[in-house]
Order: sequence, then C-alpha cells, then structure tokens
Amino acid sequence: MGMKHFDALREAAAEISDLHAAIALLEWDQQTFLPRNAAADRSEQIGTLAKFAHEKASAPAFGKLIEKASKETAGLPPDSFEACLCRKLRRNFDKTSRIPVPLASRIAGTAAKSHHAWAEAREKADFSIFQPWLARLIELRRQYAEHFQPYQNIYDPLLDNFEEGFTVAQIDPVFAALREKQCALLRKIAARPQVDDAFLHTEFDPEKQLVFVNEVISRMGYDFTRGRQDMSEHPFTTSFGLNDVRITTKVFATLPVSCLLSSVHECGHALYELGIDKSLNRTPLAEGASFAFHESQSRLWENLVARSYDFWVFFYPRLMELFPEQLAKVPLDAFYRAVNKVEPSLIRTEADEATYNLHIMLRYEMEKELLNGTLEVADIPEAWRKKSLEYLGIAPENDAQGVLQDIHWSMGEFGYFPTYALGNLIAAQIWIRAEKELPELGASIRKGDFAPLRDFLRRILHVYGAKFTPEKTLRLSTGSSRINPDCYTDLLEKKYAAIYGF
Amino acid sequence: MGMKHFDALREAAAEISDLHAAIALLEWDQQTFLPRNAAADRSEQIGTLAKFAHEKASAPAFGKLIEKASKETAGLPPDSFEACLCRKLRRNFDKTSRIPVPLASRIAGTAAKSHHAWAEAREKADFSIFQPWLARLIELRRQYAEHFQPYQNIYDPLLDNFEEGFTVAQIDPVFAALREKQCALLRKIAARPQVDDAFLHTEFDPEKQLVFVNEVISRMGYDFTRGRQDMSEHPFTTSFGLNDVRITTKVFATLPVSCLLSSVHECGHALYELGIDKSLNRTPLAEGASFAFHESQSRLWENLVARSYDFWVFFYPRLMELFPEQLAKVPLDAFYRAVNKVEPSLIRTEADEATYNLHIMLRYEMEKELLNGTLEVADIPEAWRKKSLEYLGIAPENDAQGVLQDIHWSMGEFGYFPTYALGNLIAAQIWIRAEKELPELGASIRKGDFAPLRDFLRRILHVYGAKFTPEKTLRLSTGSSRINPDCYTDLLEKKYAAIYGF
Repeated sequence: MGMKHFDALREAAAEISDLHAAIALLEWDQQTFLPRNAAADRSEQIGTLAKFAHEKASAPAFGKLIEKASKETAGLPPDSFEACLCRKLRRNFDKTSRIPVPLASRIAGTAAKSHHAWAEAREKADFSIFQPWLARLIELRRQYAEHFQPYQNIYDPLLDNFEEGFTVAQIDPVFAALREKQCALLRKIAARPQVDDAFLHTEFDPEKQLVFVNEVISRMGYDFTRGRQDMSEHPFTTSFGLNDVRITTKVFATLPVSCLLSSVHECGHALYELGIDKSLNRTPLAEGASFAFHESQSRLWENLVARSYDFWVFFYPRLMELFPEQLAKVPLDAFYRAVNKVEPSLIRTEADEATYNLHIMLRYEMEKELLNGTLEVADIPEAWRKKSLEYLGIAPENDAQGVLQDIHWSMGEFGYFPTYALGNLIAAQIWIRAEKELPELGASIRKGDFAPLRDFLRRILHVYGAKFTPEKTLRLSTGSSRINPDCYTDLLEKKYAAIYGF
Repeated sequence: MGMKHFDALREAAAEISDLHAAIALLEWDQQTFLPRNAAADRSEQIGTLAKFAHEKASAPAFGKLIEKASKETAGLPPDSFEACLCRKLRRNFDKTSRIPVPLASRIAGTAAKSHHAWAEAREKADFSIFQPWLARLIELRRQYAEHFQPYQNIYDPLLDNFEEGFTVAQIDPVFAALREKQCALLRKIAARPQVDDAFLHTEFDPEKQLVFVNEVISRMGYDFTRGRQDMSEHPFTTSFGLNDVRITTKVFATLPVSCLLSSVHECGHALYELGIDKSLNRTPLAEGASFAFHESQSRLWENLVARSYDFWVFFYPRLMELFPEQLAKVPLDAFYRAVNKVEPSLIRTEADEATYNLHIMLRYEMEKELLNGTLEVADIPEAWRKKSLEYLGIAPENDAQGVLQDIHWSMGEFGYFPTYALGNLIAAQIWIRAEKELPELGASIRKGDFAPLRDFLRRILHVYGAKFTPEKTLRLSTGSSRINPDCYTDLLEKKYAAIYGF
C-alpha cells in the first residue's frame, strides 16, 4: 500500500527544492558572470522567486499535508527517510508560520535597504550611515524572537535558525573556556621570535596558482562532473542539487597561499554536499546538518589538512616546481612555518587559525548584548575597540576595519557568527576521531592520498545530510554528545609549540 | 487617480517575467557551463519552474485581473503601454486557457519523451525509432488545433503560436512566388563556373577567430555591460530581461567564417532585444514582435551586412592581419566571393543564402500535409527525398541528413519553420527601406560604422518590442502591409549576378 500523502508531500517538497536551486543559480551567476548593468533586474528576480518559495513553503495546505504525511509515516523508525523528511519540513513550517507575514516582509525589506546603507557606510568608513538601519534591524529581530516565547535568552531563537536546538546557556561556557586558552596561547606565541614569511610576499603568477589549486582539489576528490570552479569577488560554495555543487575562488598575485586555502575551504564545503546520500536529493535533507557542521568541513580541510606539515610534504615539491624563482631557496620547514604564521589582525576573514575564534567571540558577545538591550547601537564602535584590544591587542583605526567589515548584520542576520567558531571546534573533534580510527591518516596525506580521510568523513557525517538535528549529528560524527573546546586548543597548542618553539 | 487593477496586473506579470528569466538562466547554464552529471536534475528544475509559470499565467484569478485591468484602461489609446500590455496578456491567457489541462500535460509529456526518441533515432540515423512518437505528436497537435475552431486551415492555430494572426492562405502565395524565383536563380548559378573557396578550408586559430569576432560584434554595438558571449554546442541568444541579453557561439578551427557569421547572427537577435524600450522591461512586451521579426534581425546582420562587400572592405584587412599565412595572397574580391559561395546542401543550418528558404518550404509543406492528413508519417522519408531532389537537386543518403536533422518536431513544435523564411523576407524589406532612408548606409559600413543602421533598426522596429501584432509591426517597420518576396529575390539576384557573372 502506498503512502499517498507522503508521496504528495515529497513531490511538493521536491518542487520547492527546484525553486531554491533556481534561486541559487541566479545568485551564483550574480557573483560570477553577471553583466554589470544587469544587477537591479537580477535582484528583482531573486526577490520574486524567494517570495514564491516562501509562499509555497508556508501555505496552510502545505502545513496540512505535512500533518497528514506525518501521521501516515508515524510507525516508521525515527531515522527513516520518511520520518526525517517529515520532521525537517514540520520544523521549517512551524518556524516560518509563527512569524506574521507583515513582520517577515518588514524584516526582508529593511534588510535589503540596510544592506545598501551598510555598503555605503563601509565605503566611507562611516558607521553613522549604517547605525539607524542596524538599530531598526535589531528591533525587528527582537520582535521576531518574541514569537518564540518562552526562551531562556532572546538570542536563542535566532541562534536556532542556524544551529537547531543550540542555546546561549550551552555555548557560553564553551566559548569562555576557549577564549581563556586561546588568549593564553597568543601570549605564548607573542613572547617568541616571529616567523619569517617575507618570501610569500612576492609575485606568483595567477595562472600557475590556478593550475596548482586544481591539482590540489582534484586530489581532494572534488568531482568536476558534478561541479565546477569559477572566479568571484568573495569565494563561496553553492549547490543546485546533489549533482551540481559549485565552488568559486579568487587569485591574488601577491598572496599565493590565499587562493589555495580559499579553494580548499570551499572544496571542503563541496565535498560535504557531494557526499550526501543521493536518495536525499530534491529534498530539504540534501544539505549540511547545520551551519557549524558545514563550517567544520571547510575548516577541517583548510586548517587541519592544507596547513599541515604532512600536506606540504607531498605538495611543496610541486609548488617549488611551479615557482622555482620564488621558492627554490626556501626549505619545506620554512614554508610550513610561513603558512602558519600567527599575527593578530583586524579583519576576521584574514585571521589565522590561532586568532580567528577571538574575532567570532567579540561579535557573538556584542550580538547578545545588543539583543538583550545591554549595549546601545551607538556604542558599538567604542565597544568594538575595547574588545579588540582586550582579545587581539590591536584596535581598528576606523569603522571599516571594525564593525563595518562583515556583511551579516546588514542582512539582518544575528546568530550566524558563533557557527564559525563552533565549526572550528567540531572540526577538531572529528579530526581527533579520524586520527584514532585511521592510523595511516598522516601517511596517506604525505602521499597525496586523501581517499581514506574523505571516505571517513563521508561515512561519519556527509551521507546523513540534514536528516538529524545538530545534536544527534554531533554524536554520530564525533562520538561525543557535547562540543569540547579542548580538542581544538590541544591541537593548536601542539602545532604552535613546534612552530614557535615554546 | 491610480489604476489599482492595472497596477496589480503589471506586478503579477512582472513576477511571471521573473520566473521566465529564471527558466532562461537555467537553460543558458544547461547549454554553457552545466557539469556533465547534472543534466537530469536540471531538467527537473526547468520542468518545475515552467509548471509554476504556467499555473500563474493560466490561473482564473489572473484572467479576472486581466479583464478588470482591461476595463480600467479601456479609454487609453490602443498604442499605449497599458492597452498593449492588456492586449498581450489577454491573448496569451485566452490561448492557454482554451487548452484543457490534461491535453496540455499530454503534449508536454509526449514531447519530452519524443525528444529522447528523436535524439536516439538521429544518432542511429533510423527514423523508425522516432516515427511512432512523431505520429503521436501530430495527433496531439491536431487535437490542440481543434480548440481553436473555426479555422480555415488546421495549420493556422499552430502558426499563430509563432506569428500571431498569420495564416496558410496568406503565406502560401508568398512562398509559391518565392520558390519559383529561388529555384530559377539556383539554375542560373549552377550554369556558371563555381566559386573557389579552397583557402577557407585550412586551419584558423580559434583564439584569434574569437578576437576577430569580438571586434566585429563590439563594432556592431553589442553592449557587453548588458550581455556576454560564451561557448555552446548550438549557438543561441537568450534574455533575462532587457539588461541581460546573452549570446553564445561555437568555433571550428577549419571553418573560419562559421563562428563569425554565427556570432553576428546571434548578435542581430541580441541587438533587437537590447533595443527594446526600457519601459517594457519585466513584461511580456519585452521581447521581439514575433519569431519572424526576430529572425529578420539576425538574418539582416548575418546576410545583408556580414556577407556584404562593404562589410569586408572594412574588416578584411584586419582578418588578413590576424591570418597572414592563410589570407595574404587572397584578394578581397576572392574572399568576398568565397563567403558567398552557393552550393545546395542537405543540412538546413548549413545552407547558404540562396538555398536556405527552400529547406524551409520543404518542411512547411510537409507540416501542412501531415496536419491535414494528406501525408502519412511513415511516408516522410520518401517525401523528403522527392522534395529535396526537386528543390535542391540532391537527396539525403539517410534519415539523419533528412527528416531527423531538426529538433523542432521532436519538441512538438509545428508552425515554427516558416518563420525562418518569413524572417529572411522581412529582413530584405527592411533593408530596402534602410537603403532609401540612409543614403550613406554603404559608406558607413565600409568605414566600420554601424551606428546609423543600428539606430535606424532600433527606431523602426526594436523600440516597440512586442507591443503590436506582427501585422502592425510590419507596417511600422517596412511601411508595407504585406510580406513581399520580391524584395528578397531582387537583392539575391543582384548580388549573385555580380558574383557568378550572369
């Protein structure tokens, strides 16, 4: 006997997935190939399709179909495809339908305008242009959160949009422990002689950089029959279904490792999506388990693989071959140290492994205070300077180097930032498990063989897609039921003790 | 006082336009950049969005909105934006809503499967694989046409899908006169010594070909801030609104003029769309007046400009500069004659100016007979051979060179072919008017200055978009109320008399 409601639900969900794929393509094209004067029309197109997708996903008839299909599949195991799909659709529907349409439109409209104000403010390094918009967005997000009463912290319903089920109460102690150890590590590093990376700051032919990058991501297992790499101003990964996961990159002639690490990062995201079980295609389960899990994969490949000594044992000879002029006299050890140089800087996206999380904590703490009303929008620049000095020992000279550097708030997104740091922590927990279960892990990487690691990641994480909550996904992938910052700091400590000699 | 129904209609139509833009982007990407294994998912995505667009455009509520808006705008002049938009939407709605949903689905579904059968049949040069599908499609199109009773010829409602208001009674005499004169011209050419184009059949570096092509289309006025050129297996033009009209091309190392003429052809299509009045953007008026008018623009630039002596006076020196090895010893006259060599061939898309329309007439006559039941599907290959011998003096050796060469029937499209020939005829009528109104036309082209021609075409045709019927558009653009084949044959006669010396 068939399950007619479930089948109808699955088809309706597949059509909504198709709409989202079209939106993703419109956005991908916007970032890669869009003619200069087509920008305004493209925004309209994306807006219209997003509206249609939202209408379909929040239609009362769709809600009823979810209910009926859920009853129909109630007897199936909770980890069955049917149960997982119903659960995911129900959660999305519930979250969406709690928000009155006028509020949702006001948030979307204000975010669109705020984004323009932010871009102008950033251009002019003048926070006052963005300030009233940011205040409005925070007020709207407070109203948004009210629809999810009761909550322990007003920040929780926002965080839940990125990390289902995660709360301030849960991550505050994690971050507190992390901050203490990372700051202590930074102090130790600062007391040692700095690493020399002068040889990296010369010209490296972009064409040859791309040849190298393509060799690396091919070896990582990026499947060019189910994806492609193009150029864009801000590198990203996007998916139009499980058979088309594309990445972009950016090359700088004078920053040879930047393009590589960026591509490896995006390729890590892509391998996650490409590893999801094919049976989940054209459903909302065909994505990562959460933002933090997605970031765990990009960071694992970027930091734990592509910044590792083992990785360069294999790839450095090839890089020297491509750039003999620049690297012939640089030994592997010196190159490895240069790639891992630690130096507090003002811009999050350029931060190294040892300082990155501190940039996140600064933003996370500020978001909580803004939402809880203990920090005024007008006071952000001053608060930013203080925290930056406290955590990184340096302070921005202007707002473009401070509060205006990130796009997230301008789009009305609060609760996104912590997922970056959580991703780093999860990556470390997964890595420690990989080292245990794959005794030949280092040896295989030194041979340029990434299949054991890729297959392991696929088996413990990728295949599941978004079938389970982040909490359950954490248990499946790390074996632990909690996020443990010690894994991350232990790995850092070990690595930098060797590099900086303390 | 505002027009609230019209404003609502305009917004709804704009959203449907956005959906069509997204479909066009999905298709553009499919032909240019799609990873190999993403094809099946992409078909699903296009199918879903096409279904949504159809649902929206045929919803009873949308029909009522059209009615109310039409009443609201009834007092406005018939050439006003409001009246034209209402007329166009009403026509589209009426045509769509006459067809019962089950029949529309059956046509779409059968066409999708037929297309696969056709591709296999073509691959194997075996018509029998496609034959039952073609029979089904013709039967479905007959049922389709029945919903447009009364008609004079069952072919008329199909033709009307491509050329609103055009009928068999109207174009039969046009084609009869055209056929007679073109066949006579061919006989005259065949009696003369053949042109030598051996020097074209050598290697021409594809990269350098593209440099040349880009110079030509830039001079034609193709606006790269509102479009781009990429590579695809079958060159085409597509539009995602009036600020993003893209073309594709294909380069062959041994056919140097093929890529150029193909790009110029597509650029002709693109200039039409790019020249449409911006106020029509995001409406169904933001397209060509009909298929024939669109083809008139591509053919005008391809044949009347890029195959003209004047054109090569300007561009041949540059081509020689790029390819000295191949062309240094070839004088302009010889090159011009080679580019205009006439030789009956079996494949429509490769046909020259003097034989192209004959390929069309063969198909048009066959379509009429198939729809009217005077030709059986099983008898097509034999009928094809006979007509091909009669018109071109040659016959296909297999079905791939005959009935299986074109995609149109496999997609259930009947009535499309005649628009190609009509486009040629309209191009000639427009050209003759241009020669009259622009006394410096030839001189400007000899200087590589296409602005006078482009501005003229924009003024007499492009700006109007699809505001008016093809009939009214014909009057506006040619000054004549009928399609006159003599313009075309007179131009041909004059050109080939000079080239072949009769």
